[in-house]
Amino acid sequence: MREAAVIGVGMTKFGELWTKSLRDIFVEAGLKAIDDAGVDHIDAMYVGSMTPGLFVGQEHIGALMADYLGVAPIPAVRIESACASGGFAFRQAFLDVASGMNDIVLAGGVEKMTDGADVTYALSTAADQEYECYQGITFPGLYAMIANVYFERYGATRKHLAMVAVKNHKNGALNPNAQFQSEITIDDVLNATMVADPITVMDSSPVSDGGACVIVTTVDIAKKLNKPIIKVIGSGAGTDTIALHQRDDILSLNAVRIAGERAYKMAGIKPSDVNFAEVHDCFTIAELCIIEELGFAPRGKAAELIEKGETTLTGKIPINTSGGLKSKGHPVGATGIAQIVEVVEQLRGNAGKRQVKNAKIGLTQNMGGSGASSTVHIFKLD
Amino acid sequence: MREAAVIGVGMTKFGELWTKSLRDIFVEAGLKAIDDAGVDHIDAMYVGSMTPGLFVGQEHIGALMADYLGVAPIPAVRIESACASGGFAFRQAFLDVASGMNDIVLAGGVEKMTDGADVTYALSTAADQEYECYQGITFPGLYAMIANVYFERYGATRKHLAMVAVKNHKNGALNPNAQFQSEITIDDVLNATMVADPITVMDSSPVSDGGACVIVTTVDIAKKLNKPIIKVIGSGAGTDTIALHQRDDILSLNAVRIAGERAYKMAGIKPSDVNFAEVHDCFTIAELCIIEELGFAPRGKAAELIEKGETTLTGKIPINTSGGLKSKGHPVGATGIAQIVEVVEQLRGNAGKRQVKNAKIGLTQNMGGSGASSTVHIFKLD
Repeated sequence: MREAAVIGVGMTKFGELWTKSLRDIFVEAGLKAIDDAGVDHIDAMYVGSMTPGLFVGQEHIGALMADYLGVAPIPAVRIESACASGGFAFRQAFLDVASGMNDIVLAGGVEKMTDGADVTYALSTAADQEYECYQGITFPGLYAMIANVYFERYGATRKHLAMVAVKNHKNGALNPNAQFQSEITIDDVLNATMVADPITVMDSSPVSDGGACVIVTTVDIAKKLNKPIIKVIGSGAGTDTIALHQRDDILSLNAVRIAGERAYKMAGIKPSDVNFAEVHDCFTIAELCIIEELGFAPRGKAAELIEKGETTLTGKIPINTSGGLKSKGHPVGATGIAQIVEVVEQLRGNAGKRQVKNAKIGLTQNMGGSGASSTVHIFKLD
Repeated sequence: MREAAVIGVGMTKFGELWTKSLRDIFVEAGLKAIDDAGVDHIDAMYVGSMTPGLFVGQEHIGALMADYLGVAPIPAVRIESACASGGFAFRQAFLDVASGMNDIVLAGGVEKMTDGADVTYALSTAADQEYECYQGITFPGLYAMIANVYFERYGATRKHLAMVAVKNHKNGALNPNAQFQSEITIDDVLNATMVADPITVMDSSPVSDGGACVIVTTVDIAKKLNKPIIKVIGSGAGTDTIALHQRDDILSLNAVRIAGERAYKMAGIKPSDVNFAEVHDCFTIAELCIIEELGFAPRGKAAELIEKGETTLTGKIPINTSGGLKSKGHPVGATGIAQIVEVVEQLRGNAGKRQVKNAKIGLTQNMGGSGASSTVHIFKLD
């Protein structure tokens, strides 16, 4: 396999982008990434998007975005794995470069969720329609079940979930691309409207529009372009049962654990070598479970880690320095790529007021549905 | 890049599969391919599907199919490029093996179109919604415009289109997996209900359910398994403007030409070295244009090639020996993989009554929308 590096990143502001269409959003992010990379062409493109068909009535967006970005006739294709579409799009771009097929590849993600579609229905297509959605359950309900078992088994409380939201909003307040650039308090979360007990609206990531793109190339080309070398040292992906009730233990996110193990193995590092991470906090409880699956805390100990402040910007393992899905926003297909944008900005030392000190190795974890698919990527400043 | 080979193929019958769900269809094809390959595991999976979200309300089908096929936690992801989803899924599986990331990879395609969704709307999401569909045009209309310009410029007639349908039905009548296993006449086509002048319903591929899967591995592993070595010697992909009116010439399928040129270059062969091909005859006129873009006939001469019988089973370059989309059926996401199933069966000498003599090199061409994306793959019996 050829070694690969990320040499360009770009994203739109996340939020309710009323004046921008799906293609406008992608093209804005794509041009920023190409400009940042300083390349005069790209050889292929992967577009992560969950369900543009249901959100805006448009499929075939690999070709569409290549056309509107002005890069046709290059190979371009859409990658879908629900909310992990961005992470998988990056993985395919990485494999394309690693294989030797193409040298400079764009991995992007985009979603336009606020255009009037039935968002709850569209998102529910990430779960098992036959065994979950048709019975009336939605994603807040699925994660609420996980949270209740977590509380029962490990003695954590709603306050621990609230700490995740408060920390992520604090980081998001420092991110000019975040949907919500405002701090919140524990009480704001505890007193917020209940969606599915114990998940409140402030435990939930928002409905967002947004796009993000990165440029992947070989390490040799990155060196010739005189770019900071942000190496892709690990790539892992995994799957699990799509329906939550079919798992041996609904607290085990096997896809996340396996994706992490594979990425660590490929990178030749252990969890304690990671300096900071962007993880998939679609609901606050997810951040706790993921922290454990990735080995940043022992099983059942994520709440303690968070309580001690170890996941803040100055903690032992800063998590979601960008604000995470909760505060930065969650345009589902774009999320996995936006995580990589943040990690690259941190590794380059360009993260401004939310800069993590001594950031050398960063990790991204992106997840689909209630954890039926996940990618993990590890990046190192060379 | 590591050399790759196809060692297993499987597909369902194409048609109106009322008693089978999306997942049933995929699992049936997947188990057949795994069984045919004689492997005890697969390492990763790519699922081509155009719009299961609009057809049956289910996205995230990479993970879903891994779960139901019993292969989770392996990496699995959906690939979408409208009707070229299958071709692109194969390409990603090929790149995965070529990169060295995984050794035994399943590439599949599936679509369930007859479950009550608005099929015309769902398919229209492959075109440019903003500039085409909202103006009222559908795919028969787009291909009708291409056909009219073709007639005007090259003097071809509706009879030439009909010859494509007649030939493909003749082949399909010999294929037990085809949706329509019956021959038709030129008059059947000419007298059929007009959809968009000059395209009749008998110039159009049908609405179908179906699935197809193939297993890709390294040539080394294929040899160890004592399987016939069907090498992937060429892989090309290309894109074009998504809207037809934005092309310099609406008769030029640039994505097809470029995908073909890249595949030929990689394979180190020329069009005349290809013994037979499966091409994307979503409408009869498409087969004529594609024959020219792939170099099997000079520009404007495809009608003559067909008239001379050179694309029949015993001709110089048999086209769509399986029956093509017209007769075999067109469950959109499955089509690109089913083309590969046919080519492998032909190269193995297992195509029964539709066997092409001296089949050593076969080509597959799979296209999205009105040609905004295309893949071409070339296979050689070692």
